[in-house]
Amino acid sequence: MKYKAYKDRLTTIADIGYSIGLLSWDQETYMPEKGAGFRAQQMATLSGLVHEHFTDKDFGKILKKLNENPKKLNEKQKRNVAQTLKDYKKQKKYSREFVELLSKTTSECFQSWQKARKENNFKLYAPHLTKMIELKRKEADILGYKKHPYDALIDQYEPGARVADLDVLFKDVREQLVVFVKKIAAAKQNEDKFMYLHYPKDKQWDFGIDLLKQMHFDFEAGRQDISAHPFTTSFNPKDVRVTTRISEDNLKSMIWSCIHEGGHGLYEQGLPESEYGLPSGEAISLGIHESQSRLWENMVGRGLPYWKANMKTLQKYFPANLNNISAEQFYKAANIVAPSFIRTEADELTYHFHILIRYEIEKALMEGKLEVKNLPEYWNARYKEYLGIKVPNNTQGVLQDIHWSHGSIGYFPTYSLGSFYAAQFYATAKKEIKSLENKIENGNLLPLLEWLREKIHHHGKYYSAEELCKKVTGEKLNFSYFMDYAKGKYSALYNIK
Amino acid sequence: MKYKAYKDRLTTIADIGYSIGLLSWDQETYMPEKGAGFRAQQMATLSGLVHEHFTDKDFGKILKKLNENPKKLNEKQKRNVAQTLKDYKKQKKYSREFVELLSKTTSECFQSWQKARKENNFKLYAPHLTKMIELKRKEADILGYKKHPYDALIDQYEPGARVADLDVLFKDVREQLVVFVKKIAAAKQNEDKFMYLHYPKDKQWDFGIDLLKQMHFDFEAGRQDISAHPFTTSFNPKDVRVTTRISEDNLKSMIWSCIHEGGHGLYEQGLPESEYGLPSGEAISLGIHESQSRLWENMVGRGLPYWKANMKTLQKYFPANLNNISAEQFYKAANIVAPSFIRTEADELTYHFHILIRYEIEKALMEGKLEVKNLPEYWNARYKEYLGIKVPNNTQGVLQDIHWSHGSIGYFPTYSLGSFYAAQFYATAKKEIKSLENKIENGNLLPLLEWLREKIHHHGKYYSAEELCKKVTGEKLNFSYFMDYAKGKYSALYNIK
Repeated sequence: MKYKAYKDRLTTIADIGYSIGLLSWDQETYMPEKGAGFRAQQMATLSGLVHEHFTDKDFGKILKKLNENPKKLNEKQKRNVAQTLKDYKKQKKYSREFVELLSKTTSECFQSWQKARKENNFKLYAPHLTKMIELKRKEADILGYKKHPYDALIDQYEPGARVADLDVLFKDVREQLVVFVKKIAAAKQNEDKFMYLHYPKDKQWDFGIDLLKQMHFDFEAGRQDISAHPFTTSFNPKDVRVTTRISEDNLKSMIWSCIHEGGHGLYEQGLPESEYGLPSGEAISLGIHESQSRLWENMVGRGLPYWKANMKTLQKYFPANLNNISAEQFYKAANIVAPSFIRTEADELTYHFHILIRYEIEKALMEGKLEVKNLPEYWNARYKEYLGIKVPNNTQGVLQDIHWSHGSIGYFPTYSLGSFYAAQFYATAKKEIKSLENKIENGNLLPLLEWLREKIHHHGKYYSAEELCKKVTGEKLNFSYFMDYAKGKYSALYNIK
Repeated sequence: MKYKAYKDRLTTIADIGYSIGLLSWDQETYMPEKGAGFRAQQMATLSGLVHEHFTDKDFGKILKKLNENPKKLNEKQKRNVAQTLKDYKKQKKYSREFVELLSKTTSECFQSWQKARKENNFKLYAPHLTKMIELKRKEADILGYKKHPYDALIDQYEPGARVADLDVLFKDVREQLVVFVKKIAAAKQNEDKFMYLHYPKDKQWDFGIDLLKQMHFDFEAGRQDISAHPFTTSFNPKDVRVTTRISEDNLKSMIWSCIHEGGHGLYEQGLPESEYGLPSGEAISLGIHESQSRLWENMVGRGLPYWKANMKTLQKYFPANLNNISAEQFYKAANIVAPSFIRTEADELTYHFHILIRYEIEKALMEGKLEVKNLPEYWNARYKEYLGIKVPNNTQGVLQDIHWSHGSIGYFPTYSLGSFYAAQFYATAKKEIKSLENKIENGNLLPLLEWLREKIHHHGKYYSAEELCKKVTGEKLNFSYFMDYAKGKYSALYNIK
């Protein structure tokens, strides 16, 4: 009975939370512009209700009793209760004053960032970001940590991830990936001009839908729409929304954002419906979520077998542009490695330098070793060092990302973790699924999806990221999988010995 | 301070209520089909929260204190408080048991109706509808009434409307309109075959958007989408959603549903933003809402001046179908009067016979003079009597409307009230706006909209329907305005002396 009360409460909270999800989805896709003010208020009200229902004392009592007397619970139920109790205790640490201050600061910080970015004027943003960083250091103290204040923040996005481990990981990125990318830069470059011809919007849209269908994204339990920044959101496993963007003079933008979000969407559609609202019905972490999008986007969607399967379809949509382009040529064009200023436009290798830089900055900010006013200088120096490029202005530099203005410190590392997990999962899938890449070459993506469903999606949050990784691949996260993938693929692509 | 607490509570309730509105809008427009189950649950949870927040004892105390000590309140605030207190007392009358029973019965009744309609089998529906009618009679007792149990139900949709008045109104419909429509039936009939040629979807859509823009529907504060059944919903005056449907072999369907919903949408966009969540920020009643849609759809959108303004644009979209059709011919085709089985497809005159029949039935059901099992027979006899047609089957007869299956008894009369109010308002507008129909003929609809804004929209629910009608037109609802409108228009159209 107590477990039922616990589940009912979480169902109510999920119902409200996913309603916020729809308010937010609509805001990014269909909401008329003048609706923004009331929409923000409506979302804030519902967020308040979620907090109220989750931190309610009676609910706390139920959680504690269940946790102390878990005899009648099965293993999954025990883990659910333990997870929720952990979240409950965390939420209870925040005073109302702190939450309100954080909310106010976030709003101001976001607005100043928008203006600063538009006007290429970092000084407009600096005082608000300084306040935000101070608050985030306080938040780390409120939440508590053992070794590093940054740990407390990372844990909100990637439970269990710690600076001690990430330092090792990003050291590898710095030492191994930087060296390899330099080799690529020195090699003969491939051609991708045909990607930037005119590609009409409607045909790109249709091709994207074809790709999602081929991935077995269930359009009876989800849909795709257009938004300025592609994203995935879900209101339950039977209603998963992905969005894409289409640029008529850049075919790359739609294709790989579509596959990427499709990967996120498949994870959400694969979560167990019966566990709605419970930890066992949720994604494990942002890193594991990103592993699903990156696996589909990069290991599958930027692979040669995939384009052998799909080149003819693509040519039918754009015969004039692509009839003379072979699957091999398309594959090469899909994998151009070159340093660039903007994270979201980076290739799958140099992308991690963008994250590395942000990781180093966030750590330094949290340690108090870096002051906000010195951020642009620090940023530009790192871009020179790791990517060998001179950042032309702050808008294309330190002002490019929304994350810090939203108070999301500790979020960036999950992007790299996602890619590294993806490489490790995919290496295992190749071992376990007979002739996987032949199957992909034949356009048969179901065996891979079924493998991901069984190994990852169906478990919800039952395992931690580390447990899952060990269970699926036999070992914890190991950067060498990604490095092997990168070397194998790009050595061939760029004729590197 | 107390008034602020009152307003804050209503704002919270509105935030939740309008979130349900979005969940519902999405359900009808974009939600993937498998999402239906969880969506229903999410809407139920939020509805429960609205009820909980509204019927909260502390809120009741605030309301009562404000109502007893209204010295510090201005007239608008006093009326708001009185209105909310009235609603509060009404909501408090419902026991949890009754609400749950009603909800369960509604769900079963709706499902049985869907099946019965599909299979043309009234017997599947009858036992559930019988239960529903019993509950509705109980509900009338719970709510209380002075003269007629039906009064209690009508009041939920059209506050202040009573059987005593509606009987007089529908007597006029029966006596005057039936006679006039018989004259039309005996006259030489007009031609509308060209309305049923092939009209491609995209062009119809574009033309509909043109019409809405001409009406000054603000697309920065609203949007149009497609749904199976056109409707209007609003999440605040800055975010108003209308929907339409497009049939490629019936141009009428899109045009007048689009103008109709546009009329509803303009009312919502005209409600005072500062009164969000308060009675003074809400529509008065369903009848007044319908007066806005009907005024635009019929008095404006089925008028000759309107088509003199828009015929050329329409011809540009469909030259092959319409280049030989004059504005006068189009006007005639837009106003064919002929008896039909389906209410939603009826012309603006015979429409009221459909409502009259439903009104008589609802009244008889509430009085216990009619049993559900005898409904089909009763229905078919009335269609024979008032419309002179033989209903071919129950699907096209008594099973056609969703309303009763939802427990909406007392809703239908508001459709007729809307048309009658519309005729009365429009007659006044013609007097007060200099050469209104010349303006319409020039495509200038702004003077009319501004008049409606000032006279009706801006007041929210400050006045009752009766008060508003008196204030705007100098007298209470008077059926002769509609009859004069009908006679003037259709005598000319059908050459009736």
